[in-house]
Amino acid sequence: MTKFHGVVPPVVTPLNPDFTVDYPSYTRVLEHLIEAGCHGVFVLGSTSEVVFHDWKTRQAILEHSVTVVNGRVPVIAGVIDATTDAVIAHSQAAKAAGANAVVVTAPYYTITSQSEIIDHFRYIKDAVDIPLVAYDIPVCVHTKLARSTVTTLAKEGTIIGLKDSSGDDGNFRYALLDLVEHEDVFLMTGSETVVDNALQMGAHGVVPGLANVDPHGYVRLWNAAQRGDWAAARREQERLCELFEIVWVAQNRVSGGASGIGGFKTAMRRLGIIDTNVMPRPRQPLNEAEAVRIDMILRSTGLLD
Amino acid sequence: MTKFHGVVPPVVTPLNPDFTVDYPSYTRVLEHLIEAGCHGVFVLGSTSEVVFHDWKTRQAILEHSVTVVNGRVPVIAGVIDATTDAVIAHSQAAKAAGANAVVVTAPYYTITSQSEIIDHFRYIKDAVDIPLVAYDIPVCVHTKLARSTVTTLAKEGTIIGLKDSSGDDGNFRYALLDLVEHEDVFLMTGSETVVDNALQMGAHGVVPGLANVDPHGYVRLWNAAQRGDWAAARREQERLCELFEIVWVAQNRVSGGASGIGGFKTAMRRLGIIDTNVMPRPRQPLNEAEAVRIDMILRSTGLLD
Amino acid sequence: MTKFHGVVPPVVTPLNPDFTVDYPSYTRVLEHLIEAGCHGVFVLGSTSEVVFHDWKTRQAILEHSVTVVNGRVPVIAGVIDATTDAVIAHSQAAKAAGANAVVVTAPYYTITSQSEIIDHFRYIKDAVDIPLVAYDIPVCVHTKLARSTVTTLAKEGTIIGLKDSSGDDGNFRYALLDLVEHEDVFLMTGSETVVDNALQMGAHGVVPGLANVDPHGYVRLWNAAQRGDWAAARREQERLCELFEIVWVAQNRVSGGASGIGGFKTAMRRLGIIDTNVMPRPRQPLNEAEAVRIDMILRSTGLLD
Amino acid sequence: MTKFHGVVPPVVTPLNPDFTVDYPSYTRVLEHLIEAGCHGVFVLGSTSEVVFHDWKTRQAILEHSVTVVNGRVPVIAGVIDATTDAVIAHSQAAKAAGANAVVVTAPYYTITSQSEIIDHFRYIKDAVDIPLVAYDIPVCVHTKLARSTVTTLAKEGTIIGLKDSSGDDGNFRYALLDLVEHEDVFLMTGSETVVDNALQMGAHGVVPGLANVDPHGYVRLWNAAQRGDWAAARREQERLCELFEIVWVAQNRVSGGASGIGGFKTAMRRLGIIDTNVMPRPRQPLNEAEAVRIDMILRSTGLLD
Repeated sequence: MTKFHGVVPPVVTPLNPDFTVDYPSYTRVLEHLIEAGCHGVFVLGSTSEVVFHDWKTRQAILEHSVTVVNGRVPVIAGVIDATTDAVIAHSQAAKAAGANAVVVTAPYYTITSQSEIIDHFRYIKDAVDIPLVAYDIPVCVHTKLARSTVTTLAKEGTIIGLKDSSGDDGNFRYALLDLVEHEDVFLMTGSETVVDNALQMGAHGVVPGLANVDPHGYVRLWNAAQRGDWAAARREQERLCELFEIVWVAQNRVSGGASGIGGFKTAMRRLGIIDTNVMPRPRQPLNEAEAVRIDMILRSTGLLD
Repeated sequence: MTKFHGVVPPVVTPLNPDFTVDYPSYTRVLEHLIEAGCHGVFVLGSTSEVVFHDWKTRQAILEHSVTVVNGRVPVIAGVIDATTDAVIAHSQAAKAAGANAVVVTAPYYTITSQSEIIDHFRYIKDAVDIPLVAYDIPVCVHTKLARSTVTTLAKEGTIIGLKDSSGDDGNFRYALLDLVEHEDVFLMTGSETVVDNALQMGAHGVVPGLANVDPHGYVRLWNAAQRGDWAAARREQERLCELFEIVWVAQNRVSGGASGIGGFKTAMRRLGIIDTNVMPRPRQPLNEAEAVRIDMILRSTGLLD
Repeated sequence: MTKFHGVVPPVVTPLNPDFTVDYPSYTRVLEHLIEAGCHGVFVLGSTSEVVFHDWKTRQAILEHSVTVVNGRVPVIAGVIDATTDAVIAHSQAAKAAGANAVVVTAPYYTITSQSEIIDHFRYIKDAVDIPLVAYDIPVCVHTKLARSTVTTLAKEGTIIGLKDSSGDDGNFRYALLDLVEHEDVFLMTGSETVVDNALQMGAHGVVPGLANVDPHGYVRLWNAAQRGDWAAARREQERLCELFEIVWVAQNRVSGGASGIGGFKTAMRRLGIIDTNVMPRPRQPLNEAEAVRIDMILRSTGLLD
Repeated sequence: MTKFHGVVPPVVTPLNPDFTVDYPSYTRVLEHLIEAGCHGVFVLGSTSEVVFHDWKTRQAILEHSVTVVNGRVPVIAGVIDATTDAVIAHSQAAKAAGANAVVVTAPYYTITSQSEIIDHFRYIKDAVDIPLVAYDIPVCVHTKLARSTVTTLAKEGTIIGLKDSSGDDGNFRYALLDLVEHEDVFLMTGSETVVDNALQMGAHGVVPGLANVDPHGYVRLWNAAQRGDWAAARREQERLCELFEIVWVAQNRVSGGASGIGGFKTAMRRLGIIDTNVMPRPRQPLNEAEAVRIDMILRSTGLLD
């Protein structure tokens, strides 16, 4: 199995004013990421607003992604759903569409336990012949994948990797240490403001939503880390931290989800990558006053003149 | 509009060993509830393990329910999904299937705000011509419907009622007081161990999962309350509290969800209402030692000789 | 041992502008409560803002309370502190001052377990010869007393009662049922907007902060419940719910603690019971605009002409 | 003002079997830390189990610390208490005892707001002429110091630094960036398993409880970071992560607090630094089976032959 690695952005899904997917813009996003040197793409994740799209649209997004990417980098697909059998169905569809791996969260809406979570992954592994990546995202599913859950699943070969969006970087380090001898397992962080740290710990990849706005920045950061230039990695990360402030521009007016991804979309619109900053219902888009503040941040971080 | 009221159990979904719905058993559950005098049924809710069933199965369950119930009592249908458009699609299907009202939660998986929740309900109301009941269930969706959210939606006519499974009975009382002059709005509690209290406050209905096991008990409790015999209501409730201990029999071995609904199913199997206590994956059913403890509780509460 | 029971308000501690205790006002509060027919007083609890007062002041407040009350009703004293030995020291002082029982929370600031909480109560019981009442207040100590913790301690005689301010009324009911044969144990609720419900369940007492403002209301509610007039109890409770809105008047400007007790103090000042609405640092008092809104509520609930 | 920096361990407080402080052992702890090259000591913090000690004992511990340290390194003193005036009193005593700075948490037990927290620090600053360090420890006080709270207080000179034990390393990075031009402000992390990361971000100091067991390790880590040898820093941190597993040895038997500090004390006893592993009530010490597992970890990390 080829090991995934590097900068693997969770791809934003641009929308038309009628809330359908804007595929021309979406193609531009993918090209923008690949041309910048990203090492893979993660589609149909939380940043893709996956749970706002119906089954058919999810499949269409994935098929479009595979077609556009065309083997240049791996396509990792979120198969986000509340329960085991739904995830199995999504995984089969993802395999059929040509995804290289699928990303699976703990069950949600239901009240779950670590033991059930382990069974959940095992049932999926048994049912579908596609590599599984565990997705630790307690902010969405309200359960944290325990250290022992991740290491059990990785050591037995049920999962081939982890995307850790829990923010618990100390725990992530223990996953790296626990699995250091399992070279086929890859561990990726979603903590996009401390990517230099995660790489210094030995993380194999990073999944930064902000890379939709500035993929070159994260690729430079990755490259600096690969050559051991931690001072350069830090400088790049600190600039990206300043850029990341776009996610909070609207935080006093809309929900955290709308403010964060809305910030990405508004910046991407300004940079000409996508055509609108439309958000799926019931999320509201950023308004023009907020867009002006986004522009200021884009300028101060060197993305706009 | 006819006001819903009374004992409206959230109907358990019995399964075959291959995890398909056991419709003969399901029919018996519905008949058991209606014969006992329940005033309505709530299908496809959390107790129905709705999120474990795919779209087609959900539709089949609802159609089967409408056919079996055949107008004897109202059928209220959960349209549980993570985001607005999915709920709209479920609501249209529920209307087509003949549901009398649909039950809508706050968005989940996404990070949401009260303002977005209000919009969520308004979009659904605009899109589908079927009465909406708000479902306050923070243990599943991890957001509480604020008092002002409920009263805003009820006063403007977006929702016709509330199913409050938040456990915050003080807040539920304020909803009753806030809406006392809106006689078309009905407010139901899911706090099944303090139903006598909710009725004493003026609740219009109760949605007890335990009524799957003992509908007669809840109907007696409702009737006692209607005639103002609070001492009898309390005695009945206290017996039901003893019976409710079945939900904790397996709590040290499996998740809270599996232990609770698994307890219901195991008791219903013992009482001959359904054929198996199979749980949907990844939930595990109660084992035989646990079933023996369930039997003891059924005996001590008068449901078994 | 005489069983405590009835309306036992947690007594507000009025302050002078220099933050010292205003004892003349404090005397008036106690007289106001006793004259209204309250069955006991709970001093040095959360509503008394106990943790804002130093050791010496706490002792002075308690001694003053015992002197003023002069045996007319029991004086129950909070011995709120973070760890076992501090609570023992406070309990010894409370006994010396003439308190009839002490009220003990779970440890706080420290990260604790139910097993440690059980030991905590046992150590205190062994060290001091004064009746212990368990105080379940997770909003302050961030740990809930488990049902089994309360029943274990009560059945073995370590505690003589419970003040339940957890808001989990279903769990409170189980405490009542678990201990129904232990007639010497008394169980009191702090859920002041559903007192009629708690009494209908069989609660032995109620500890409403709002009784500082309207003790007659809670005494009438208690009396109605004692004679089984639940309709009258409900009417009284509903009026008190309307009055209770004073705790939220300042909620958008100050913390929940400052808004709630500040609301009580501002109403009591308006009613002439105390001289100021001064709050201990860093809490801010309600301002004049908020006081005007308090006045309106006092008027609409019949406490002001 | 001299800027604090470097490895500043929170000093464990060894106890005699009768729960009094074991001062000879305590002296050895301090000497052990200073001889290893630690740059300061933080006494009377959470790791010191400060809230288990009464006022007099806290003062005696601090005075003993100042005497033993004798100016060789700064002594920073926790003034942990629930409310403003109590913290002021502790701060005055700490100043009198010769502490070089005091460490102040948000209020606890009370329900508080960011605005009240800001006032809390300002009142203390106004009342006592000693440098204040903010202590962000939500696991104990259940409130996080907001980014804007810390930067406001630091920029206006109310606090001279921060000890961040929140585990939110992304937020800590923003504090470093926000205050980069305020060279007199020092920011220290309590995230002891990712100290290399914090130093790479630019943290000015680290406050690892584990340094009580292995101060040389943290000093080597600090020194490696100072000379920019991040590979060596990482190796040292990874060995310390393995050692840190001692905090979980008893986690299934006792509370997290008892397991963590109990693990430190048991290791320190084995290493001959202190005489007992006695814990303050109601915490239980580690048992002998657990001590054997601690020994194994000490051996595998090179601290025991």
